[in-house]
Amino acid sequence: MGNRGITLRSEDFSAWYNDVIMRAELADYAPVRGCMVIRPRGYRIWELMQAALDGMLKETGHENAYFPLLIPQSFLAKEAEHIAGFAPQTAVVTHAGGKELEEPLVIRPTSETIIYSMFSKWIQSYRDLPLLINQWANIVRWEMRTRLFLRTTEFLWQEGHTAHATESDAEAEALLILRLYRKFMEEWMAMPVVTGLKTESEKFAGALRTYSCEGMMQDNKALQAGTSHNLGQNFSRAFDVQYQTEEGSRDYTWNTSWGASTRLIGGLIMTHSDDNGLVCPPRLAPVQVVVVPIWRKDEEKSAVLEAGQRVEADLKKAGLRTALDDRESMKPGAKYFEWEGRGVPVRLELGPRDLAENKVVVARRTGGKAPSPMTDIGATVTGVLEELQQQLFEDALERREEHSHRNLDRSGFIELMEGQGGFVYGGFCGGARCESEIKEKTKATIRVLPDSEFRSPEPQDKCMWCGNKAVSEAVWAKAY
Amino acid sequence: MGNRGITLRSEDFSAWYNDVIMRAELADYAPVRGCMVIRPRGYRIWELMQAALDGMLKETGHENAYFPLLIPQSFLAKEAEHIAGFAPQTAVVTHAGGKELEEPLVIRPTSETIIYSMFSKWIQSYRDLPLLINQWANIVRWEMRTRLFLRTTEFLWQEGHTAHATESDAEAEALLILRLYRKFMEEWMAMPVVTGLKTESEKFAGALRTYSCEGMMQDNKALQAGTSHNLGQNFSRAFDVQYQTEEGSRDYTWNTSWGASTRLIGGLIMTHSDDNGLVCPPRLAPVQVVVVPIWRKDEEKSAVLEAGQRVEADLKKAGLRTALDDRESMKPGAKYFEWEGRGVPVRLELGPRDLAENKVVVARRTGGKAPSPMTDIGATVTGVLEELQQQLFEDALERREEHSHRNLDRSGFIELMEGQGGFVYGGFCGGARCESEIKEKTKATIRVLPDSEFRSPEPQDKCMWCGNKAVSEAVWAKAY
Repeated sequence: MGNRGITLRSEDFSAWYNDVIMRAELADYAPVRGCMVIRPRGYRIWELMQAALDGMLKETGHENAYFPLLIPQSFLAKEAEHIAGFAPQTAVVTHAGGKELEEPLVIRPTSETIIYSMFSKWIQSYRDLPLLINQWANIVRWEMRTRLFLRTTEFLWQEGHTAHATESDAEAEALLILRLYRKFMEEWMAMPVVTGLKTESEKFAGALRTYSCEGMMQDNKALQAGTSHNLGQNFSRAFDVQYQTEEGSRDYTWNTSWGASTRLIGGLIMTHSDDNGLVCPPRLAPVQVVVVPIWRKDEEKSAVLEAGQRVEADLKKAGLRTALDDRESMKPGAKYFEWEGRGVPVRLELGPRDLAENKVVVARRTGGKAPSPMTDIGATVTGVLEELQQQLFEDALERREEHSHRNLDRSGFIELMEGQGGFVYGGFCGGARCESEIKEKTKATIRVLPDSEFRSPEPQDKCMWCGNKAVSEAVWAKAY
Repeated sequence: MGNRGITLRSEDFSAWYNDVIMRAELADYAPVRGCMVIRPRGYRIWELMQAALDGMLKETGHENAYFPLLIPQSFLAKEAEHIAGFAPQTAVVTHAGGKELEEPLVIRPTSETIIYSMFSKWIQSYRDLPLLINQWANIVRWEMRTRLFLRTTEFLWQEGHTAHATESDAEAEALLILRLYRKFMEEWMAMPVVTGLKTESEKFAGALRTYSCEGMMQDNKALQAGTSHNLGQNFSRAFDVQYQTEEGSRDYTWNTSWGASTRLIGGLIMTHSDDNGLVCPPRLAPVQVVVVPIWRKDEEKSAVLEAGQRVEADLKKAGLRTALDDRESMKPGAKYFEWEGRGVPVRLELGPRDLAENKVVVARRTGGKAPSPMTDIGATVTGVLEELQQQLFEDALERREEHSHRNLDRSGFIELMEGQGGFVYGGFCGGARCESEIKEKTKATIRVLPDSEFRSPEPQDKCMWCGNKAVSEAVWAKAY
């Protein structure tokens, strides 16, 4: 346990993670197995994430809609791989309105089936394509082992579902979204990710191909942060989504689906936070800057408070999300402690001496403080926040590269995975057997076959595990 | 059937309502009993409603959070009236993860129970009060007869849940929200509402008092559009939500809850739309103004299209939500028809002659068109939209007053309810027997005991039904 009442990362990463969440009041355990309550400070982060991501999706022509929570059990069975993948995780409604239902209803574990059943009604002609739909919704998957944000029985997400005339249109959409997710994760969450293709054993149940964004957490484990699937014609065939082509023939549509969830909040926490609690990237911080007026004597109070209000007004005018902590029942040190735990990026301290010099002390959540003129404080803090945002990204990137390993042999790989872990770039023969052997021996899985820009300058030409000819490079890691 | 392919209101109001929704592509029937799909054009209205209402709630100090979808059945039973009211409508999860659950879980029909169970954990002291929480969520109530938006098995809503130190604080909150709802309905939806208190038989299951906003639809029936409940200490006692007072004693909190749902979209439709389809108040219209360039000859096309793009850019610059309909496969008349059905408040027609005169034709969805200079078109259309918003409200208000009746006797009341219906203001003895007799005979119910500003200048001093002394005035109507 650190001196802040938070378990140290170095002692127990998992306990640290929970402590950070509790200290920042981001979430709480619900009285239902595996479910969480997202508290206002956590939900506000989600709202800011939603606003950013939703804006990016709208800009690229996607429209939001809403489909039913409950799906007839028979729908799930229409796509063979899909039902095999999801059936064991479903929650089933058998009774409603005081009666037993004729057909049980499943709470959506994902919405492909219900959405493509509607698409078959809406899509007639090539003129109706592409159809670009997104939905913000809650999802239920009965998970055995749950962790706040990372894996909960119920979670919130967006799920995109699109229909296209050609395979290449669908592929382009899947890749567009992959890039969009990456941009969001890097620019908003300050979380660098490696993108690439999932192997057959790790792809979405029912997809042709799955692309993924993988972040590295501070314990060197990977977090799958968002996935984008080219579904081919699997679902359009299962749900008879056909359209008349420009030439008058009929064809099945090509589909994609893609999602990112409240799991991202877990990723944000594990990428940036420290032993003092949450560190929140400025662009997603519910409160970006807190003003703490300080006084000892009553005669100082009104002047300091008034200046604090003036400063807060200036910050608001600059478009910043602010708080003024004028609680009288609490000492400044206790306030600092609390706001640090909540991850507020910048704190402004303002005492009688600062006021006399027309200055405030600008303290950064990640360390360091210095006085700054009160004039133009909005612009000053805006600049500091931009710097912090950039710094968080660079620090995370540096940490990831430090823990990315290349040219390991089999025993080096095993040793690393038994020790500090990390991302391992190595040759892969493409064999499912190597994948499963590696998973069994080391708990590491192939996170992605990396996209070109992430590939090593000189990738191994032999499988890191079996020594046969490599068909591609792979990135291995233990994962959440 | 009208000449637009939409049933006439005067012929069959209910068929007209469905036709308007289908024509505007607001929603569709889902393959699950009583459920709907909210299509992009409908969902965008909901998003605009959410943004407005959410802003008003945040301004008044409320914070959003998220609580689990699934509630242990035993929770519902902790408040006696609550379980009696909601048990018959619940959908029940009995199996999950391939096993039968030890305790069945109910899909939330409302979230008081799960939320107050968390409040009991979070609230310790008077310093934690008031606690002002709101949640945007989906709700399931197993309804027997469903109608798109108005009554669906699943619907979307916001539900507020607050905890206060005193009864008067809770009462003030319940009334604050009632006023806030009214403001939203009047200023955004252009839907006038009568506010007041529900009678015992119509109040929320578990509440001390329920306040309601009641709109009048074009068939003169009432729509309960939003309710706000003073829950007293019913739930805090059931879930042991206690706090330490400033004086050091312990007391149960006083609570409120309040909600407004996607039903509001039904109210919007039935308040304003006409036999040509949807009429959407400008402030909630997904597209506020559509530009339709018109050309016959190829040599006209590029000039007209270019001018259309310029006009659209000007409209966007004025902050308006716009569309440019440059489809070549469709004639202008067909486009007008389509955009009218979608409820777009203003259409700009732009042909070669208009262009030569540097003008566009401004056509209003509710009738009338006139040329207007292309210069300052953003400001012109902004002004027209404001006028339209105001006009829709005034028209609805006038219609409501036209169909509000006072000083009817028993037989006059029965006759009215058998005929055209409307709101009837009359004396009420306070007796549950009169209420149930009236409901049985006329299908009318007491919508509210109206707030002072809605009360008649000279209310009847005797019960409109039994003739005994009236304890208050009541507003009767048939309702959705």
